[in-house]
Amino acid sequence: MEIAKAARKAANTLKTLSNDKRTSALKAIHDHLRDHKDIILESNRLDLQLAEQADLSPALIKRLDLNKGDKFDVMLQGVLDVAALEDPVGRQSILRELDDGLVLERVASPVGVLLVIFEARPEVIANIGALAIKSGNAAILKGGKESSHTFQSMAEVIRTALAKTSVPTDSLQLIATREKVADLLHCDKYIDMVIPRGSNELVRSIKRSTTIPVLGHADGICSIYANKDATAEMAAEIIVDSKTNYPAGCNAVETVLIHQDTQFDVLRSILVALLDAGVTVKLEHNLYTRAREALPDEPKIVEAAEEDFDTEFLALTVAVKYVESLQEAIDHINEHGSHHTDCIITENALDAAAFQKGVDSAGVFWNASTRFADGYRYGFGTEVGISTNKLHARGPVGLEGLMSYQYLLKGKGHIAGNYVGAGGNRHFTHKDL
Amino acid sequence: MEIAKAARKAANTLKTLSNDKRTSALKAIHDHLRDHKDIILESNRLDLQLAEQADLSPALIKRLDLNKGDKFDVMLQGVLDVAALEDPVGRQSILRELDDGLVLERVASPVGVLLVIFEARPEVIANIGALAIKSGNAAILKGGKESSHTFQSMAEVIRTALAKTSVPTDSLQLIATREKVADLLHCDKYIDMVIPRGSNELVRSIKRSTTIPVLGHADGICSIYANKDATAEMAAEIIVDSKTNYPAGCNAVETVLIHQDTQFDVLRSILVALLDAGVTVKLEHNLYTRAREALPDEPKIVEAAEEDFDTEFLALTVAVKYVESLQEAIDHINEHGSHHTDCIITENALDAAAFQKGVDSAGVFWNASTRFADGYRYGFGTEVGISTNKLHARGPVGLEGLMSYQYLLKGKGHIAGNYVGAGGNRHFTHKDL
Repeated sequence: MEIAKAARKAANTLKTLSNDKRTSALKAIHDHLRDHKDIILESNRLDLQLAEQADLSPALIKRLDLNKGDKFDVMLQGVLDVAALEDPVGRQSILRELDDGLVLERVASPVGVLLVIFEARPEVIANIGALAIKSGNAAILKGGKESSHTFQSMAEVIRTALAKTSVPTDSLQLIATREKVADLLHCDKYIDMVIPRGSNELVRSIKRSTTIPVLGHADGICSIYANKDATAEMAAEIIVDSKTNYPAGCNAVETVLIHQDTQFDVLRSILVALLDAGVTVKLEHNLYTRAREALPDEPKIVEAAEEDFDTEFLALTVAVKYVESLQEAIDHINEHGSHHTDCIITENALDAAAFQKGVDSAGVFWNASTRFADGYRYGFGTEVGISTNKLHARGPVGLEGLMSYQYLLKGKGHIAGNYVGAGGNRHFTHKDL
Repeated sequence: MEIAKAARKAANTLKTLSNDKRTSALKAIHDHLRDHKDIILESNRLDLQLAEQADLSPALIKRLDLNKGDKFDVMLQGVLDVAALEDPVGRQSILRELDDGLVLERVASPVGVLLVIFEARPEVIANIGALAIKSGNAAILKGGKESSHTFQSMAEVIRTALAKTSVPTDSLQLIATREKVADLLHCDKYIDMVIPRGSNELVRSIKRSTTIPVLGHADGICSIYANKDATAEMAAEIIVDSKTNYPAGCNAVETVLIHQDTQFDVLRSILVALLDAGVTVKLEHNLYTRAREALPDEPKIVEAAEEDFDTEFLALTVAVKYVESLQEAIDHINEHGSHHTDCIITENALDAAAFQKGVDSAGVFWNASTRFADGYRYGFGTEVGISTNKLHARGPVGLEGLMSYQYLLKGKGHIAGNYVGAGGNRHFTHKDL
């Protein structure tokens, strides 16, 4: 509770600081992290040792290791990149004269206090810390326990750096225990947004435990629908890229729907391309029977169960089924998908438009890989996360996802009672300036 | 649960309908309500009788009465006014070439399914129903039990009207019991937003009981700060208007902060103006002592208790205290206010700017009555409510508060694997069109 109060207090100051002051603080953080690389890497080695002793998975250990390749330098550069972004604070979205001398302005302002919960990767603390300060938000950070020594060490370095700047040191606070997170999830008076970065289970459990808005996505069940006119080559290429480019990504495809009137060689091309790429293909009963006949000895062809069409495989596995119509494809996606990103492959512009109108997902694509659903690829400069919420930020979220807005009204002693509807007879001019 | 599923199904169709079709449906609702005025008013008389027998308050009975003055005709005109608004669906906010032939578009789309909970006033069903259909959203409506016969009758008329249009009848569903609301508040798979329109207690209890985003405000504790250079006349006029123009409004002022170095006659003018307007003034100890000396026999001058500065009086009562500085005023408002609308009275532009930067509320005003915080006055055409949330919609919310957005990407078979960062060497062009 004290942590949340301190964060709110810091946020109230941070909100008033100029871009110059916020940017200088980021440079100070960058320099300090660079100058204390040795100390940080020492703590990181301790975490790595403990992880090895605890027999954690090689994948996790790889994520922990801050000395791997150019990870440390990339992290440092990331802080400078965020510092160089355009200032998101104060951007004007309305400027309107309500009456002579009475002017309304709507400007972007920080959300306030963020609670960011993430797992093993230690560089996230620098990345998220930079995004928070750049956007004028205070952040409370909770990292996975596997990286606790690295986090502790980085947090100290960052706080020391901030102490010499105008940005209050409590703008970035690190917490260590799960119990504290549980407490903080109830502090809706002081915390404005929770950002979980980690497994689906983490996101789901946080969404269940708080009434504070949660930015993120629990699932990424993306679908691709091949319309009856889809060409074999394009369908195969897009589906293989969407599945195999990064199978652990939330924007990887998990379900493929094929119009039952497509030519058999479209189906065959898709299957062969997937199999060649090492993908296990789970086919719905009808399709399975046909495919088994054509490819009797292929071990990676499997009959799908019903729940496969509600599953995020996050692996080289995909579920495939026939649909009778475009509408059935749309209905299937709206019911079974996770409203993340879905795609239609077709040459028919009317069908594409109907699909893009009908599918209720953050991204609805036409003849393009689902893997394009990404803040960098969309040109946002940076990515805070991908949201399957419909309110506030949806889809890939850039710095603007950390912004709210405020209405500033400037008058000369104007009172409402002089206007029509509130007792007077003056009319509003409502003239955009 | 069935209700929520049916609403989702209706929303999926409604989302695809053109503005013409949605607008025609509103005209059909208007005509049908007009043609069945007698039946509706008969049900309304029954509700009124029951309310009188149950000895409900005259204020409540007045809100119930649909035959009072031109209320019915105003309601009918309201439906046509909403029909005439610009179509909010499909408005483009990004149009960007990511690469040759790969174009990203961001367009406004309906949120989906709204759960609207309101109290006695029966005309709200037509008003909210019209806003929902115009914006492509399905709505589940729950009205207060005092108007149940009127609601039932209006809902039937509206469903009969919709049955003859392209808008699915389940786009507007009425529910009658509290138990059903409790169930629906858990249907986060099917319901996207809850809009409570009613008492603070209603809003607070709903916010506590759901993880679905709630649009609205529980409290409206607005403050006005008179800076040390505030002039007596402007301060008195703005404060009196903010308090008395509509004391039950959420944008009425509840707390007045006065810089302790203001001239005594500024304080005196404010007090006298408030007392003349029939306002009870609760003064913090120091101020109370001074005011008592000057106006010894004034019964409407009362010493304030601490909790008066955390109270929304919703009546002709205001709490007043001295502050030592502009910063103390800002801190007081951020801590004790409800982040709705606050105002500074000053001729000093630097102090005004510091106040507008430092106060973390939806509206931060300078020399203007807090009563201007209103969708109509801001020029939004209509008002869905006023939000003290920081995410999604903040402040007075027009039709755009019922909108989300989607990313539509159109390619020609583009795959991510060809681009830098995902295994290839092509670069994005990121050119806004």
